[in-house]
Amino acid sequence: MHSFKEIVALFEDYISKEGLFDRSPENLYEPCRYIMSLAAKRVRPALCLMGSEVFGDVNEDSFHSAAAIELFHNFTLIHDDIMDEAPLRRGNATVHTKYGLTAGILSGDIMLIRAYEELAKVSKHQADVLHLFNTTAREVCEGQQLDMDFEKRNDVSVEEYINMIALKTSVLLACSLKMGALLSSADKTDADQLYAFGKNLGLAFQLQDDYLDAFGDANKVGKQVGGDIKANKKTFLLIKAIELTKDNPERIGQLLKSDADTKVEEMLDVYKEAGVDALCRTLIHEYSEKAFKSLAAINVEKERTAPLYGLATYLLQRDK
Amino acid sequence: MHSFKEIVALFEDYISKEGLFDRSPENLYEPCRYIMSLAAKRVRPALCLMGSEVFGDVNEDSFHSAAAIELFHNFTLIHDDIMDEAPLRRGNATVHTKYGLTAGILSGDIMLIRAYEELAKVSKHQADVLHLFNTTAREVCEGQQLDMDFEKRNDVSVEEYINMIALKTSVLLACSLKMGALLSSADKTDADQLYAFGKNLGLAFQLQDDYLDAFGDANKVGKQVGGDIKANKKTFLLIKAIELTKDNPERIGQLLKSDADTKVEEMLDVYKEAGVDALCRTLIHEYSEKAFKSLAAINVEKERTAPLYGLATYLLQRDK
Repeated sequence: MHSFKEIVALFEDYISKEGLFDRSPENLYEPCRYIMSLAAKRVRPALCLMGSEVFGDVNEDSFHSAAAIELFHNFTLIHDDIMDEAPLRRGNATVHTKYGLTAGILSGDIMLIRAYEELAKVSKHQADVLHLFNTTAREVCEGQQLDMDFEKRNDVSVEEYINMIALKTSVLLACSLKMGALLSSADKTDADQLYAFGKNLGLAFQLQDDYLDAFGDANKVGKQVGGDIKANKKTFLLIKAIELTKDNPERIGQLLKSDADTKVEEMLDVYKEAGVDALCRTLIHEYSEKAFKSLAAINVEKERTAPLYGLATYLLQRDK
Repeated sequence: MHSFKEIVALFEDYISKEGLFDRSPENLYEPCRYIMSLAAKRVRPALCLMGSEVFGDVNEDSFHSAAAIELFHNFTLIHDDIMDEAPLRRGNATVHTKYGLTAGILSGDIMLIRAYEELAKVSKHQADVLHLFNTTAREVCEGQQLDMDFEKRNDVSVEEYINMIALKTSVLLACSLKMGALLSSADKTDADQLYAFGKNLGLAFQLQDDYLDAFGDANKVGKQVGGDIKANKKTFLLIKAIELTKDNPERIGQLLKSDADTKVEEMLDVYKEAGVDALCRTLIHEYSEKAFKSLAAINVEKERTAPLYGLATYLLQRDK
């Protein structure tokens, strides 16, 4: 059994030895090496390896799958950054900003293909792994499309929003864990519990992200709060506040159009009056509880799930 | 045994029954349905099915693989059209022109994932099929990158050019045929001969395309000739002419900068004086011969390769 930190070190070691993009043409593979070299938390590949350790040992297949997942994740980052016209990623220039649009599209494409090359090396349970990966990859793209669609809509429901963040973020975390479980020959019920743990943990984490951007302590969160409010980003807080004030929509309507210095402060007042801060905390708590219940239901000794329990507790107790 | 035309009809029937993109969100899948609905020759999936028929019957696995190849091909078309800033494809608006850049990137991505979903359904020889597909997909991206790189270079050699068109175009034709062969349990030597047939046929066809754009009969080719010359496109003819006139480079150098009405005519004179028209015909002949030799070497009764022989003859005898 390894801690999260140890698992990440093992993974970094593996991908550096693999030399994932030691090929030519240079203009295709250099952007791939660049994005993979940016400081990253490696949460998803770590979850895959930790998923294997719940039911057995990490093995070659776990590393191939973990690499596939991290490659897929970086493919989505490159292409999403183009769609979002984002200049920065992890504090550095995004791939399309640094290397151009063509390089962004094509190096993203090759990273997705490279992910499948890693999966092709998986020697056991390959059919199950491929099926899970394909389904998840499709869902992540659907989530990204919904996110783009929602930017242009003002009638997004909470249910639609939860579905979107599940697809865009949570299913890949869930897939990482379940894939690791499959590779240690976990039975289907246990693998599905681990999937549910990852999915609900992801939802809780994303909602917490929404919450902290509005109500977090800037010193502890590590960034200026209110960014989502300034950008009119459709978070749970905004969507729920619009829903709860629909009989009296002028105030939010005017705030959404506002550029005033007091915009963040005033929107926070609206959120508190509507009670969406408390509703958000309740929802985070509910998804966290579901996640921990799924983890507890897995049919192994408690010490085998301890590292995941610790990681989830750490992720969900960022300063509230 | 089926003719090319019959095989294409079977394939169209298969993909229409499959409903490849009958899903939501609409904004993700509508562009996919759009590009798949544009009139297309379906050469690659037909080659896959015909490859199966050389050694046996077409089966469910052949159709899954043929669909994967056509999906992959359309994924490359969507993304290449963005990189080439192309407004038209098969006489219709390109995906990014019609639906925007975001839709172009994301619908291309989902088509590649959808291709892998088809491959995941393959029940026999799946490991070999996946390996071949992954390698080919990577090569096609490398070919596209080299093509983009060559646009900015003036010292591309004939060898580099042949390597680029092999990667960008020929390996997918070769892969289609070999994949079909693998699915009919052809032995390795025969499957490799079919691959060589496809690769050399692809090279001959691409070089013929270069030749006809310069020296073809506009009425028979079906488009205005000289388009490559006007665009300074680095074809075999231009690359070889630059090489052969390197001691006296002014004339080509000036023509490349020219916008004059006589540009095409004058460049054709340069090509003829340098003899690159004859060299191109010789090279087309050599690659055609190699292709037919590989086809003849396959260890089956001649009637089994007759449809492929007919198709290749038809493709290579477009009006010269």
